[in-house]
Amino acid sequence: MSSLTDLKTSFQKTEKASLKPLMDIVVQDLEDTNQIILDRMHSDVELIPTLARHLIAAGGKRLRPVLTLGAAKLCGYEGDRAKKLAACVEFIHTATLLHDDVVDESDLRRGNETANALWGNQASVLVGDFLFSRSFQLMVEDGSLEVLRILSNASAVIAEGEVLQLMNVGDISLTEDKYYEVIGAKTAALFTAACEVGAVVAERPEAEVKALADYGTNLGIAFQLIDDALDYSAEQASLGKTIGDDFREGKVTLPVLLANRKGTPDEQNFWKRVIEQSQTKSDLDTALALIEKYGTIADTFAAARKYGTAAKEALGIFEDSPVKSALLSAVDFAIDRAY
Amino acid sequence: MSSLTDLKTSFQKTEKASLKPLMDIVVQDLEDTNQIILDRMHSDVELIPTLARHLIAAGGKRLRPVLTLGAAKLCGYEGDRAKKLAACVEFIHTATLLHDDVVDESDLRRGNETANALWGNQASVLVGDFLFSRSFQLMVEDGSLEVLRILSNASAVIAEGEVLQLMNVGDISLTEDKYYEVIGAKTAALFTAACEVGAVVAERPEAEVKALADYGTNLGIAFQLIDDALDYSAEQASLGKTIGDDFREGKVTLPVLLANRKGTPDEQNFWKRVIEQSQTKSDLDTALALIEKYGTIADTFAAARKYGTAAKEALGIFEDSPVKSALLSAVDFAIDRAY
Repeated sequence: MSSLTDLKTSFQKTEKASLKPLMDIVVQDLEDTNQIILDRMHSDVELIPTLARHLIAAGGKRLRPVLTLGAAKLCGYEGDRAKKLAACVEFIHTATLLHDDVVDESDLRRGNETANALWGNQASVLVGDFLFSRSFQLMVEDGSLEVLRILSNASAVIAEGEVLQLMNVGDISLTEDKYYEVIGAKTAALFTAACEVGAVVAERPEAEVKALADYGTNLGIAFQLIDDALDYSAEQASLGKTIGDDFREGKVTLPVLLANRKGTPDEQNFWKRVIEQSQTKSDLDTALALIEKYGTIADTFAAARKYGTAAKEALGIFEDSPVKSALLSAVDFAIDRAY
Repeated sequence: MSSLTDLKTSFQKTEKASLKPLMDIVVQDLEDTNQIILDRMHSDVELIPTLARHLIAAGGKRLRPVLTLGAAKLCGYEGDRAKKLAACVEFIHTATLLHDDVVDESDLRRGNETANALWGNQASVLVGDFLFSRSFQLMVEDGSLEVLRILSNASAVIAEGEVLQLMNVGDISLTEDKYYEVIGAKTAALFTAACEVGAVVAERPEAEVKALADYGTNLGIAFQLIDDALDYSAEQASLGKTIGDDFREGKVTLPVLLANRKGTPDEQNFWKRVIEQSQTKSDLDTALALIEKYGTIADTFAAARKYGTAAKEALGIFEDSPVKSALLSAVDFAIDRAY
């Protein structure tokens, strides 16, 4: 597994998507970042690199580190620090994926068996802990307390968001506000930090740091809204991904929340039963039909577009440039992607 | 749950033990540390403080933070930083306990049901992640990159040790060297860091930092050796603790490793079967009898004493003082404790 192979995989995944302009701009930095990732996920305890590689080299889009590299470039940063910090961001993301495998019993991720399915809960937890620790070791090497502050805060918020989500499972009365609170914490917080760090290494004024943080936050919320929509999308099955994971777990996401709100009393009783009590084999089809009936996938995409627009507007203070255009089309990628 | 109640619990646990001199010296600092712990484990996500309190306020001996406070005192440090860093050390320890609950299916810890048994794997993982992140947030507030370096390194080594232990489960051919490698990483590394940090905040010369680190390392190894011996000690049952946890998990610890080495061919076949293949109800009694026959609990205590002596010798460069004597008797506590 070389960083180049790794990079190729990233490209194959993104060639047709509008993430490509950004990928093209950061390609050299990303290759260096991939090398740092591969070098620093090493441990003499063989299971660690083996299991980490399973996720890190599984052809992920490297979206978060790419955002760190892109944000730094937008701020005119030319040094090496952003590459190492982009690796930190990816390590934190990978640690949360490993711990998510314990959190929900998802059987497929990117069409692969999860690390958990292959090595069990214990290995997923511990290797996640290692990558999380390794991320902080890299930040210490970088030596910026401000970066350590941003990413330790993000990590705490992510954990809070995941716990909040866990507490909300099986509760059909979840409000839209609570739903956005969860995705803002569990997903957007790392997008925010990834972009913010890019501006911080460039030592830009507070206004630009905040603008990039806002860009990341809104992009992250849009990204999660699309994820939640895709979990009810037929297209997903064709990509070897299970659909209905959230449904089976009793996780209330926007498509369900809206379908329940718009539903008839009978339909609301259906949602209450399947989310709060028990499910039968045919319930997912019924759920998909109700989501189709009320067009709540479209509603969810519309909400994502709203946040996508806010993400683009946040970059308004920056002068036009190829990097800025690339960051703007990365927003379209997050919304138009089919995976 | 006030910090005072919390502190009382600590005392009840240690009154008769030789940890008391050290507890008496750090009592005021420890009360402040307990308050920091209670304040900073707070989150608006209620499950987090609820679950964290279950472990943190479960009457633990606070051994690691007490070592940080004691080490700082030995170095003549009088400021407030040690209290906050002692809380960091306890948060990291608590996070590893929560993740251990996922790692092994232990049903009892300090006679309580584990957080895991009460709230499940997912909550244990996520609240552990929160406390781990919170610990790094506190270190960032403290502002010492050296402290961040020491504790992020320790966290990575702990995770490596836990993974190594996981890989060694069910392998009766585990060597003594590998066994010490595991306990040095999963347990001693945090003792080392806890003591080292105390010297670092006091800004003492490298020789004293290293002396306290060596003290912590040897104390930590002795502490784990005793834990591994106690898992085969009848006395434990009377304290509401299960015994034979390691045995049931196929975890090869020193008492078993030595009993197997000294055993007859038939006895070695027994150990191979119970560790590597399957166990029947009566196997634990047979194991206890063989451990008794070869006196390997006594051997394990003897090994612990050897490391305890090394821990005491490490403090040789410090002039005699009440704090030094207290740290020396803390070593005896680690070895003589029945829990």
